[in-house]
Amino acid sequence: MHKQNQPIFDTITIAGVGLIGGSLGMAARHYAIARRVIGIGRNEQRLMKAKLLGAIDEYHLDHARGVSEADLFIVATPVRTIIPTIKAVASSLKPGAVITDVGSTKKEVVQQAQQVIPRSCSFVGGHPMAGSEKSGIEAASHDMFIGATYVLTPTEQTSIEAIQKMSRFVESLGARVEVMSPEDHDATVALISHLPHIISAALLHTVTKPRIPEHQGSEHMSSNWVFRLAAGSFRDLTRISDSPPEIWRDICLTNAEKIAIAIDILKHYLNQIQKAITTDDEDGILKFFEEARQIRQRYVQSRESQTSHNSH
Amino acid sequence: MHKQNQPIFDTITIAGVGLIGGSLGMAARHYAIARRVIGIGRNEQRLMKAKLLGAIDEYHLDHARGVSEADLFIVATPVRTIIPTIKAVASSLKPGAVITDVGSTKKEVVQQAQQVIPRSCSFVGGHPMAGSEKSGIEAASHDMFIGATYVLTPTEQTSIEAIQKMSRFVESLGARVEVMSPEDHDATVALISHLPHIISAALLHTVTKPRIPEHQGSEHMSSNWVFRLAAGSFRDLTRISDSPPEIWRDICLTNAEKIAIAIDILKHYLNQIQKAITTDDEDGILKFFEEARQIRQRYVQSRESQTSHNSH
Repeated sequence: MHKQNQPIFDTITIAGVGLIGGSLGMAARHYAIARRVIGIGRNEQRLMKAKLLGAIDEYHLDHARGVSEADLFIVATPVRTIIPTIKAVASSLKPGAVITDVGSTKKEVVQQAQQVIPRSCSFVGGHPMAGSEKSGIEAASHDMFIGATYVLTPTEQTSIEAIQKMSRFVESLGARVEVMSPEDHDATVALISHLPHIISAALLHTVTKPRIPEHQGSEHMSSNWVFRLAAGSFRDLTRISDSPPEIWRDICLTNAEKIAIAIDILKHYLNQIQKAITTDDEDGILKFFEEARQIRQRYVQSRESQTSHNSH
Repeated sequence: MHKQNQPIFDTITIAGVGLIGGSLGMAARHYAIARRVIGIGRNEQRLMKAKLLGAIDEYHLDHARGVSEADLFIVATPVRTIIPTIKAVASSLKPGAVITDVGSTKKEVVQQAQQVIPRSCSFVGGHPMAGSEKSGIEAASHDMFIGATYVLTPTEQTSIEAIQKMSRFVESLGARVEVMSPEDHDATVALISHLPHIISAALLHTVTKPRIPEHQGSEHMSSNWVFRLAAGSFRDLTRISDSPPEIWRDICLTNAEKIAIAIDILKHYLNQIQKAITTDDEDGILKFFEEARQIRQRYVQSRESQTSHNSH
């Protein structure tokens, strides 16, 4: 977050100057992490806007030209267009360039990216855990990553130098680097990000369509009053469902295995509490909520110690 | 919320001057809804504190004496002590008195309350949908109910006069009255309040204990990184789990049937999205998230129109 004496990368090229890509450009310029930031894309209007808002110094509609001098190429497109985007410019990449992405799932992307880039280049998968329900360059900001967790997912094929440069880059944004394997990343975000989004959506379906064909008894559940009585807990749990459905479709498709397991585990615990409730198991019910509260408190404490650690 | 020309009730007695009971006392005094507010309980320290904080005018440790002049008796104790509390003072209740509670579940309480009160009295079940994760008289406030939904659950046995008085009482608090049957109330809150709390607790169990015996594959899910990567969605979904476990045990025990059905319906939708994910059903996944987003937006709109309606 400190102004750099010397840029980490001379030239950074960003494909996809939306919320995350735009914010990375703004931060790279604001903190002088790069001498020059180039945007590439298909929509000239958007690129002009990104330049106007200070996310990039210049832009190119000719992608090959746009990446040819890049020391860091950031692919900030939706997760399923990352590989096509890299493929299309692979032969124009500068020897020794570092390539990274900002996708929410890592295993598939990293595997495929390593196959399509030139041997002299290095791919370091990245996942900045920042952002908001908003999207687009209008919501971008150079301080988007301050205090955020930014995961890097190198593999055995990744050069040490590329990992070190990317770590310095991430730290310069004010973010906290976490290095882990693509597999560990995907399993973890399946639990703490993808599952919550699926739960939120499932809850919205449940409260408004509480009748299901195979269930006798559900005919007594009415959704007439649902919105009128919905209180803070419902509001909290469903806020994240106001996100672009296409993004969540792509996340589900690229992390299917880990998400399916996460849903199974959730159902296991739902069955556990449901059984305790239907059998009047007072102690079982109490224990379920007691433990959950303890876990929540442990989580809050771990966040506080993280924050205080960061501020030192 | 306007100062009353004339109190609705001469004397109000409140059993349980915690967050909700204390706030009702403060509001009754602040808005001059009653001429006098009496607190009853077992813990004199607490009652003294409630008096000091302006929740009650006086208190009695002798419950029979405390209720004998009450025109409205509010039972603001935990849900499973409502009936014992009423039973203990039933023979001392003033003829014609209105009795209400503030419990989160209604069917069992209302059925039993109607059996234990004298014939000349009327029970009107109540559920103020206000409060917070905090508890105790320290967090009580006379404006706790402004803009909140306050459900009343009369039955065929409830006198019209009692319903009217309770409606005026609720409106005087600044809350919005919703009248429905105890059954409709319980089915609705099972969906929009009890299920979210169960989901939140189940999610906390899931992310920290992602290994379940019967599932091959879950051994690859690790909770090592969970708290370090947990972002906004996880925080949002688990905030409500920092609630007293005893309250949620009692809610589950007194609304078991409706909650069990709500969990079944949720599992139905979880199975639906899980199947779409494991079969690469792009359209099915997209539709699931698209619909959820639309439902969320409808909910937000309905809240906005409620709020603007209230402000007229």
